[in-house]
Amino acid sequence: MALVHYPVYNRRQEVVATAITNLDIHDIARAARTYGVESVLIVTPLERQRWLLDRILRHWQQGHGAKAHPNRSDALHEVHAMGTLDEAVEWVKVRCGQEPLTIATTARPFRQAVAYGVLRELLMAGTAPAVLLLGTGWGLSREVVDGASYVLRPIMEHGRYNHLSVRSAAAVILDRLMGDR
Amino acid sequence: MALVHYPVYNRRQEVVATAITNLDIHDIARAARTYGVESVLIVTPLERQRWLLDRILRHWQQGHGAKAHPNRSDALHEVHAMGTLDEAVEWVKVRCGQEPLTIATTARPFRQAVAYGVLRELLMAGTAPAVLLLGTGWGLSREVVDGASYVLRPIMEHGRYNHLSVRSAAAVILDRLMGDR
Repeated sequence: MALVHYPVYNRRQEVVATAITNLDIHDIARAARTYGVESVLIVTPLERQRWLLDRILRHWQQGHGAKAHPNRSDALHEVHAMGTLDEAVEWVKVRCGQEPLTIATTARPFRQAVAYGVLRELLMAGTAPAVLLLGTGWGLSREVVDGASYVLRPIMEHGRYNHLSVRSAAAVILDRLMGDR
Repeated sequence: MALVHYPVYNRRQEVVATAITNLDIHDIARAARTYGVESVLIVTPLERQRWLLDRILRHWQQGHGAKAHPNRSDALHEVHAMGTLDEAVEWVKVRCGQEPLTIATTARPFRQAVAYGVLRELLMAGTAPAVLLLGTGWGLSREVVDGASYVLRPIMEHGRYNHLSVRSAAAVILDRLMGDR
């Protein structure tokens, strides 16, 4: 999984880099671990944010957090910082020895979007590694969505209110793609 | 839905009252709204916590937050503070004119636990109002689980790692019970 802080939209539809949210990292890492995701890649190009992220991860991977909350430490062990989305995809490619599929997620309707069941089968077949892209802020930029191998349909496509936090969306998407059935 | 801060376990299996977490309220209110849940009841017996909760809710329901983030304000409109779980159930009963079913959630295996599909059908049938009980901390006390009309099975019953945040668990449970299929 990749949690993308750039390029994403802000509420005025401008492409921006969002700030890291401590609880995003924890919740998404725990969900990833629960559903058997191998790694969580936190994508941000901002130096100061990378520094903050390193501090958080070190606390939980090696510092006081590791002793006090072994379950959380466990989940955060496979969280890594990446400067760009390309770097994240390249990292997965090197690690898996194969070009990964990229799966974009969006709360907007998108003509080519695929159903969860379709992707679930594709992932279960295990023919290629895959990176699930989650956007912070007001979602992944159009360019990222257009460039992905697949785009997942919005979670509650026909609902009138569709403003899940990225933490909630991550959990629901993982459950639909990889949860017990 | 009721987010229960007492009686729940701490990590030493003692029954305690946990502290309110601002982001729990936001994430769960937004998920509740997305899936069509009528109200979110925050259960805490602690006076100081009720005061804090009132301040948070007022900010979003009437204050600056209501103007700056109308989507969030919208979600938080049906969030209410309750002193006890009995008070929450009574509130639903008065509001619906009928005794509600109570549905406990737990990450522990529980002999009488029912599958999501069974409860989904029951809720869809709409014969009685229902209150979904979510525990903070290390989960709802045994007494609450034993007293509920139904107990849902753990989310990833057969997984080796089962430590979703209550925010993530809430979203997944709502999706399984009320999500698009």
